Parts: sequence; C-alpha cells; structure tokens
Amino acid sequence: MARPIRLSEEEIRDRLRETSGWEVSEGKLRRAFKVRDFASAFGFMTSLALRAEAMNHHPDWSNVYDRVDVELTTHDAGGITELDFRLASAANGLFDQ
Amino acid sequence: MARPIRLSEEEIRDRLRETSGWEVSEGKLRRAFKVRDFASAFGFMTSLALRAEAMNHHPDWSNVYDRVDVELTTHDAGGITELDFRLASAANGLFDQ
Amino acid sequence: MARPIRLSEEEIRDRLRETSGWEVSEGKLRRAFKVRDFASAFGFMTSLALRAEAMNHHPDWSNVYDRVDVELTTHDAGGITELDFRLASAANGLFDQ
Amino acid sequence: MARPIRLSEEEIRDRLRETSGWEVSEGKLRRAFKVRDFASAFGFMTSLALRAEAMNHHPDWSNVYDRVDVELTTHDAGGITELDFRLASAANGLFDQ
Repeated sequence: MARPIRLSEEEIRDRLRETSGWEVSEGKLRRAFKVRDFASAFGFMTSLALRAEAMNHHPDWSNVYDRVDVELTTHDAGGITELDFRLASAANGLFDQ
Repeated sequence: MARPIRLSEEEIRDRLRETSGWEVSEGKLRRAFKVRDFASAFGFMTSLALRAEAMNHHPDWSNVYDRVDVELTTHDAGGITELDFRLASAANGLFDQ
Repeated sequence: MARPIRLSEEEIRDRLRETSGWEVSEGKLRRAFKVRDFASAFGFMTSLALRAEAMNHHPDWSNVYDRVDVELTTHDAGGITELDFRLASAANGLFDQ
Repeated sequence: MARPIRLSEEEIRDRLRETSGWEVSEGKLRRAFKVRDFASAFGFMTSLALRAEAMNHHPDWSNVYDRVDVELTTHDAGGITELDFRLASAANGLFDQ
C-alpha cells in the first residue's frame, strides 16, 4: 500500500463528523470504550487486535477492567492519516455489534 | 466448589428450555454460533475463554472462519452437569450482547 | 496477491520436510499442538489468529484444554497451497517461541 | 477468598526479590514486557487475561506494538497485596515460557 499521508486539520474535522465518539487530543485520535466487564473488554480488544494486525497498523491502547482507551496516530506520517480513521471505524463497528 | 453432579434426563430437558439454541447430542451439550467474520468469531471465543477459565471448566470447541462450534460436558461427572449449563448461558450472554 | 496454486504431491513432500511436526491427511495439512494448560493454549491460538487474519487465510481448528488441532487447506484452490505452508510455519514459530 | 491485606514495605521488598523484573513505583507493582512483535504481545496478554479473570484480579495495562506495560495494585486494600504478586508471578511464568 502507498504510504499514508498526514491529513490536514480540515480533513480531520470532516472525517471526525463521520466517526462517532472519537476526538483529537495531543495530536492523536482517541476514544474510550466502556463495556460490561473484563471478559467483554478483552473480547473487544481481541477482535480489534485482529483488524489492526490485518492492516499492519496498531493502536496505542490501555485497559482497566471494563474500559479500553484507544489512541491512534501514524508514526511514519507524523500525524493522523486515513489509516487511523479506518481503524477507528473498525473499532466502532465492533463496539456497536 | 463441590463436585458437580450429573443431571438426569429430565433435569436436562428442563434446563434446555431456558437455554436458547443448545441441544444435546451424543451426550454433550452443543451449540453452533455463527457471527459476522473471523475477527468477531475469535473475539467471541476470547470472551468465552475468559469465562471458562474463571469457572475452571473448559469447552471442546472448533472454529472455521465465522462459525464456532461448542460442545460441553463434565468429564469428572461422566455427563452433563450444572457447570455445562452455566457455561452455555455465559456463551449465550456474550453472543446476544 | 495472486491466487495461490494447488501444490503437487511432490511439492508437498518437499515442503513437509522443512515444516516440522506437520503431516498431510485427508487432503489437509495437520498438526496437533500440546501446551501447558488452557491459558497457554488460548494465548497461542490468539497469536496464530492474528497471523491468520493478516494473511486472510484462516485455519480449521479445535481446542480441548491444553491441545490445539490445526487443519489447513485452501478452499479456493481445492487443495494445499503455499499459503497453508506459510501459516503452518507461522504456527511453528509461535509454538517454539 | 478472604480479603487480601495490604503488604508492608518490608514484605513488599522481600517479595520483590523473588519476582524478577518487577518494581514498585507510585504505589503500584510494575513491569514492562518486550516481546517479538504485536502477535506475540497480544498472545501474551491473552494468556495473562485468562489468569487475571480466573483470579478475579485485573491489571491496569497498556500495549504499544511489541511492548506490554503492566501495573498491579489491589484497589480494595488500598495498596499492593499478595494477589498482585501472584498475578506478577503468573505474568513472569507466561513470559518465560
């Protein structure tokens, strides 16, 4: 795949409108997911880990019990790219399921 | 926990009525789960693996892409016990989520 | 990626020599992995699930406690292909780790 | 299980000697695990998630690619307890495997 290109602030604003629950803070795309308990949280993380590996694009993320905090950025591009929004959408799709 | 006791055929019939989607065949409690794709299937398996480990009661299961086949029995009791129905209910709870 | 091509019996024999622990039976590439316990078995499965998803090539597999049985074939090609040997090698790499 | 009791500083020092790689910082037991890649990292996390769920004692943890940072404390006890060292030992056992 071609190298992803860093999105402009305007492009990011546009994409955020279609990407429910995510926000940009400190240069990263972020969302906190809250689910029922640890088993649900880790199941969600596993599905997302599979998507991430398939995209070869991995999250910075943390978990405490029923909460999963996901931060996305594209190190190679020095900012947020289309790849980050694709992974964010995948996370939303898994969460809404 | 006290050793689980093998349920009678009548007890199993009663419990099956409250345990949607499961059936008994060849002495095991069985259900096939069909989900959206492999990532969803494996996420579901992971959540169920956590429940199983917490109960120290593990499934015989197989997976092909979007399908997870689960078979439950309690080897120590030589048949189906309350433990199997508890794990079956946990699986249903995760699947319906 | 180009469609994988079904390997000939001779090609399969050659590749099996470099792929420790695997054998062909009923037209599938197979290996049984035995590990320490359920937590180890399911951790191994998770790592392999990630590799499989990244290859978009998924195993037929089953698990009972500390045992994972993996069967590989390429449905689209009607037999065993290079993809199956790549996933088999990935499984060996994770197992030997 | 009986409520775990917060360990004294001396008890923690003693236990740390037997728990390779862990240290106490800001009141938590911590270790960073570095593995081969994301698939290995997430497989390790999955095995540890199973142990954690079985103990009903869950880590605060984060992951970036091949790195897993684990922080342990027992909220109910307001500090580090035997439970934390048991989970730390389980993590070491999985990592060394």
